[in-house]
Amino acid sequence: MSELDSFLEDNKSRFEDDLCEWLKMPSVSTDSAFADDVRKAANWLFGKLEELGLHTEIIETCGHPIVYAESPKIDGAPTVLVYGHYDVQPPDPLDEWQTPPFEPDVRDRKVYARGATDDKGQMITHLFGVEAWMKTVGSLPVQVKFLIEGEEECGSAGLNEFLAGKYDKDGLSVREKLSADIAVISDTSQYGPGMPAITYGLRGICYFQLNLTGPNQDLHSGAFGGSVTNPANALARMLSAIINEEGQIQIPGFYDDVAPLTEREKGQFEALHFSNDDYMKQLGVSGLSGEKGFSTLERRWARPTFDVNGLSSGYQGEGAKTVLPAKASAKFSFRLVPNQDPKTIGAALEKMLRELCPPGIEMELVHMHGANGFVLSLDSPFMQAASQAIEDGFGNKPVFIRSGGSIPVVNSFTELLGVDTLLLGWGQDDDNPHSPNEKFSLDDFQKGIRASTRLWEELSKIPV
Amino acid sequence: MSELDSFLEDNKSRFEDDLCEWLKMPSVSTDSAFADDVRKAANWLFGKLEELGLHTEIIETCGHPIVYAESPKIDGAPTVLVYGHYDVQPPDPLDEWQTPPFEPDVRDRKVYARGATDDKGQMITHLFGVEAWMKTVGSLPVQVKFLIEGEEECGSAGLNEFLAGKYDKDGLSVREKLSADIAVISDTSQYGPGMPAITYGLRGICYFQLNLTGPNQDLHSGAFGGSVTNPANALARMLSAIINEEGQIQIPGFYDDVAPLTEREKGQFEALHFSNDDYMKQLGVSGLSGEKGFSTLERRWARPTFDVNGLSSGYQGEGAKTVLPAKASAKFSFRLVPNQDPKTIGAALEKMLRELCPPGIEMELVHMHGANGFVLSLDSPFMQAASQAIEDGFGNKPVFIRSGGSIPVVNSFTELLGVDTLLLGWGQDDDNPHSPNEKFSLDDFQKGIRASTRLWEELSKIPV
Repeated sequence: MSELDSFLEDNKSRFEDDLCEWLKMPSVSTDSAFADDVRKAANWLFGKLEELGLHTEIIETCGHPIVYAESPKIDGAPTVLVYGHYDVQPPDPLDEWQTPPFEPDVRDRKVYARGATDDKGQMITHLFGVEAWMKTVGSLPVQVKFLIEGEEECGSAGLNEFLAGKYDKDGLSVREKLSADIAVISDTSQYGPGMPAITYGLRGICYFQLNLTGPNQDLHSGAFGGSVTNPANALARMLSAIINEEGQIQIPGFYDDVAPLTEREKGQFEALHFSNDDYMKQLGVSGLSGEKGFSTLERRWARPTFDVNGLSSGYQGEGAKTVLPAKASAKFSFRLVPNQDPKTIGAALEKMLRELCPPGIEMELVHMHGANGFVLSLDSPFMQAASQAIEDGFGNKPVFIRSGGSIPVVNSFTELLGVDTLLLGWGQDDDNPHSPNEKFSLDDFQKGIRASTRLWEELSKIPV
Repeated sequence: MSELDSFLEDNKSRFEDDLCEWLKMPSVSTDSAFADDVRKAANWLFGKLEELGLHTEIIETCGHPIVYAESPKIDGAPTVLVYGHYDVQPPDPLDEWQTPPFEPDVRDRKVYARGATDDKGQMITHLFGVEAWMKTVGSLPVQVKFLIEGEEECGSAGLNEFLAGKYDKDGLSVREKLSADIAVISDTSQYGPGMPAITYGLRGICYFQLNLTGPNQDLHSGAFGGSVTNPANALARMLSAIINEEGQIQIPGFYDDVAPLTEREKGQFEALHFSNDDYMKQLGVSGLSGEKGFSTLERRWARPTFDVNGLSSGYQGEGAKTVLPAKASAKFSFRLVPNQDPKTIGAALEKMLRELCPPGIEMELVHMHGANGFVLSLDSPFMQAASQAIEDGFGNKPVFIRSGGSIPVVNSFTELLGVDTLLLGWGQDDDNPHSPNEKFSLDDFQKGIRASTRLWEELSKIPV
């Protein structure tokens, strides 16, 4: 390992330079204004992977391209599918960033930029982990396949079509192309500084936009108010009917398929000594709320939720305008837990909302995207290998946690390829993914590269 | 009356020529690019009033000037304060006008121009009504005071300062200067063609902005959802608690002071044969809703309302963003009816919302503006006089209607001068004030002049 270690040591600042170069590319996938920048980020990644001697390609999709690369098959050793995404969330609200989102700024050994932790900074550790082997040993001890998409933040339409076989060519199905023994994703967080974690469970999601249309134009609220159904009033009523005061979702049958937490899991959660006080301090709130009868960690990681993500209607400028708006809309989503089905829930929701929709309002419910929840056995040999690599890379044994977010591709890997996923998080909870001032610790970045370098070796010991 | 009638008959086309001349002046008050034109319109009006032998002045204000004129006091007869405005709305969108907004065009006996009905065309009928007396009899049977402002379409800042006494001079307070027995405003509509109306009631208003702040920044709804109070969820819950499914406002005590409709009024409303079907067609809606137990006209004119005027939170752009917003805000207002007090309601609302506000949310309620409702007794002798004058001018008895909006100056006259207002509308509902192709019927214009001419005489019979 000493040759590998030296390589990692010698290339520390170059790794960081490369990271900053990549973070400068505003690859905002959801906004078509950034389409060229998304393409540039894909091309940059392609160049880096090809340079390592991997068989690399750009896979065109209905949306942004996928970057794919693979090293040669190693007989008797596992094949590892590394997934990541090179697209990022929109940077809004811009005026809350201390430094511009696409001008990476290093302060106190942390790099601040959109995409720093989610997912450019984390994902690229595996590229450097492969580089270390290729540029020292000359080959990898396992076969590595990189599958890096550009639409994780906007529904993964292109990846989904790819996984559905739509872009199969040369007689090779996507199942064969991606066939692997285990998948690896670094797009989650450690439990805390110096507490690297393996995330063995994820929540699912279903995301909707509700558009309500009332009169054919904005009306004077004096001349018309009281006689015409106000779509903004209706929106507030419909949204508030979805969840009650005790945080319980009111869609009929919503909880029917929820997988409950085991006693072992509840015990592991408790052993983390999560502090509500610290959490409130971190978030700047004077209280917490959520589903009655569950601890904060249980509510974050293992219970379903309902969150309004956006509201828009009528006059939003300075001062007062006496308008009865013609339209009102909300974006909202449910986090789901294992065994809940987004489609079933979407259908029940739509039925409920149609019943609630008052006279004089046209309702449109856009089913935007959905994903199932996920849970991986704590006893898997891949889990043991990852645990050892992390201990070597970070100097501490990992803790086993769940995460409240969704990684839809984890479901695809399970359902389509029959492959489980190791979620190895190098980030921190306060890294602000999706928020202003997103950041990533450069020390965690370097440790992540070390853990990745070790991971290929540990995984190579598993007979296949 | 025959000498007056002949004068009106003989001057018909000259009245219309004068009207068109005045409508050519683009007195758009809200846009400083038109400041010179606003001044020209004020000067034109000044010239016309002075020519009639009235004591006329231009009152300079912080904004556009007020044009003021008065005829001599008549012993034993009332003083009448005529309010109007010589400024107009911006003409945008220009490309939707069939003929240019400041080149008055007569089609089918209707003059099309910005300001035709709101308010130049309506207001000037009273100038001609005075002219008829001055150029025949040589004097008016009542004292008339004209108070014509140039900022009605942009907040009336100058008028408000004037009414607050800021421009008092020569030891004469604004209360003394404007002292009158009744005010007259023609800036409303008839109930329909051939159905002149006296608007005897207006609704009041209180307008609020509710700002809710949760976590110190937008959060990832996966990582945090379920554990932190979401301000957008809270906003929907709080707004929906203000009003129930039957359109009844739930603020404690909200209806305590509501002046109920009398049976006579209900009967008058019913006699108007308002068509819900036509109304729905006009607004492009498939149904109506509002406070249970009241007809559409009752809900528009004489019942209080709650309308959300604007909603804003989280991500409002294209696509999906899985954000738990840090902030959510709403603008909303209540239309009030006579006897309800905006301050009392604001206090009760604030108490209710503070009780509803969930843990982890900071709440700010901005009390933006308030105005009382207004109602003038149907038995007032001024009402009888106006009714007779309208019947003589239009050939039909007026109907007695209310309006759902507010006219702040009506409240100022009540509160400051202790004077009631006759709202005598010569316009039609489809005259497009504030919209492209604003128009005013020239027949209604001539009838309005005749009614105004008759009004001075009818009012002079009321002993003071």
